[in-house]
Amino acid sequence: MITSTSNPSVKWVQSLNKKAKTRREEKLFNIEGTRLFSETPKELIQEIFVSENVENTLKEELSGDNYQVVSANVLEAMCDTKTPQGILCVVRQPKYELSDILQQENPLLLVLEDLQDPGNLGTIMRTAEGAGVTGIILTKGCVDMYNPKVVRATMGAIFRMPFVYLEKEEEFERLFSILREKNITTYGAALQESKDYDLYSYVEGTAFCIGNEGNGLSDKALNLCEKYVKIPMCGQLESLNAAVAAAILDYEAFRQRRNKKP
Amino acid sequence: MITSTSNPSVKWVQSLNKKAKTRREEKLFNIEGTRLFSETPKELIQEIFVSENVENTLKEELSGDNYQVVSANVLEAMCDTKTPQGILCVVRQPKYELSDILQQENPLLLVLEDLQDPGNLGTIMRTAEGAGVTGIILTKGCVDMYNPKVVRATMGAIFRMPFVYLEKEEEFERLFSILREKNITTYGAALQESKDYDLYSYVEGTAFCIGNEGNGLSDKALNLCEKYVKIPMCGQLESLNAAVAAAILDYEAFRQRRNKKP
Repeated sequence: MITSTSNPSVKWVQSLNKKAKTRREEKLFNIEGTRLFSETPKELIQEIFVSENVENTLKEELSGDNYQVVSANVLEAMCDTKTPQGILCVVRQPKYELSDILQQENPLLLVLEDLQDPGNLGTIMRTAEGAGVTGIILTKGCVDMYNPKVVRATMGAIFRMPFVYLEKEEEFERLFSILREKNITTYGAALQESKDYDLYSYVEGTAFCIGNEGNGLSDKALNLCEKYVKIPMCGQLESLNAAVAAAILDYEAFRQRRNKKP
Repeated sequence: MITSTSNPSVKWVQSLNKKAKTRREEKLFNIEGTRLFSETPKELIQEIFVSENVENTLKEELSGDNYQVVSANVLEAMCDTKTPQGILCVVRQPKYELSDILQQENPLLLVLEDLQDPGNLGTIMRTAEGAGVTGIILTKGCVDMYNPKVVRATMGAIFRMPFVYLEKEEEFERLFSILREKNITTYGAALQESKDYDLYSYVEGTAFCIGNEGNGLSDKALNLCEKYVKIPMCGQLESLNAAVAAAILDYEAFRQRRNKKP
């Protein structure tokens, strides 16, 4: 049993929580809690740490797994959440290729540019799974998908929704060429010079492009988009929350796609 | 200039930030930052505290207002945010009556039961303004609308969206009778035994009832609702985020209402 917070395993887990760089280099990340543990594909799990408090309660879920028991205060020190549920796993990052995401029929994609808020990104991924989004493409400037706050907010969708980061600037432009070649229409979410979002048909290949929380899409991104969509707003509001905007667009596409079916 | 964090004004502001009870008793709350200050109706402002650092920059916005200058560290101690923008106001709570909310034509209402997360509640109010929701009714068990995190997330909608809390248990049942009398159809958001949300018409009086994040609507609330709506989900997701669910329902009603217009 690990009883000291200066144990190297503890330091390693803490570094995976805190540093995107460590996560990227080791291609690993942490998941916390019984719920997310039950949603994690077994083949991705690399290490399991269980608090001595809950080892007995989790006997069934852990049967056949190798795990390390740690004292309650050590588990607390390992976790990003304030009230950890007694289990933390180090998990291998799922790996997707852009080509996997693009080869599906009538894809429904999200392209996220420099999205900063972890809660927003997690919620976007969660909602995207619900709406039948087939893949998410992120610019390098987006918050890390394996940030513990993002992972939590996805509610398990992180293991089921294919996503890729564009590692280089020039890949962004190339992406839009590829989308055009594949007849996937790109819709930039923009407040000006746009048509209301519900006046387009999204039953064929569709990619919604959503920008940074404070600034929206960059001029570069706007120039690359084929069409523009606006979510109309009553009142004096300046904008909607980015995760809410994505949800409204996703679910409009899903509504159209469901109602088109015989 | 206030330079000590033990000044009674500082203690008073801190108590308004931390305690729903103080806010309720004094019918006051705090707003922070220049953006929200510009959205606050002047007649509601009771006290303005400005950091010595920004007094000069804000000269124009503050012209004609009485304000107290405080040192930078005092302002920081007063604020709920980690990086305050140099201004905090103590503001009178806007006061609405249920009858105001119900007398509008073809109302679009939200009834929130025991919603717990401040970010969710603020985002729900922000999105509601955008979608043309005419009022929000909350059970006593909901998080306080004047909680600093809620206020921030509303992005100013808190000053424009009418809302009332039901102070007593029995008012909840009475609300549903009143809604029925006024031909406002109540739709409970529920995962089971419901029709997809986009199969109803919301162009006439509509009230969406949304439950607690963990448990959804209570049996009591479900029994009181006239109809049930489900937001369909692909994949293996158990539920959507409460603010996302509200956004999808609000914007479907708004879509129908816009498209109905000549």
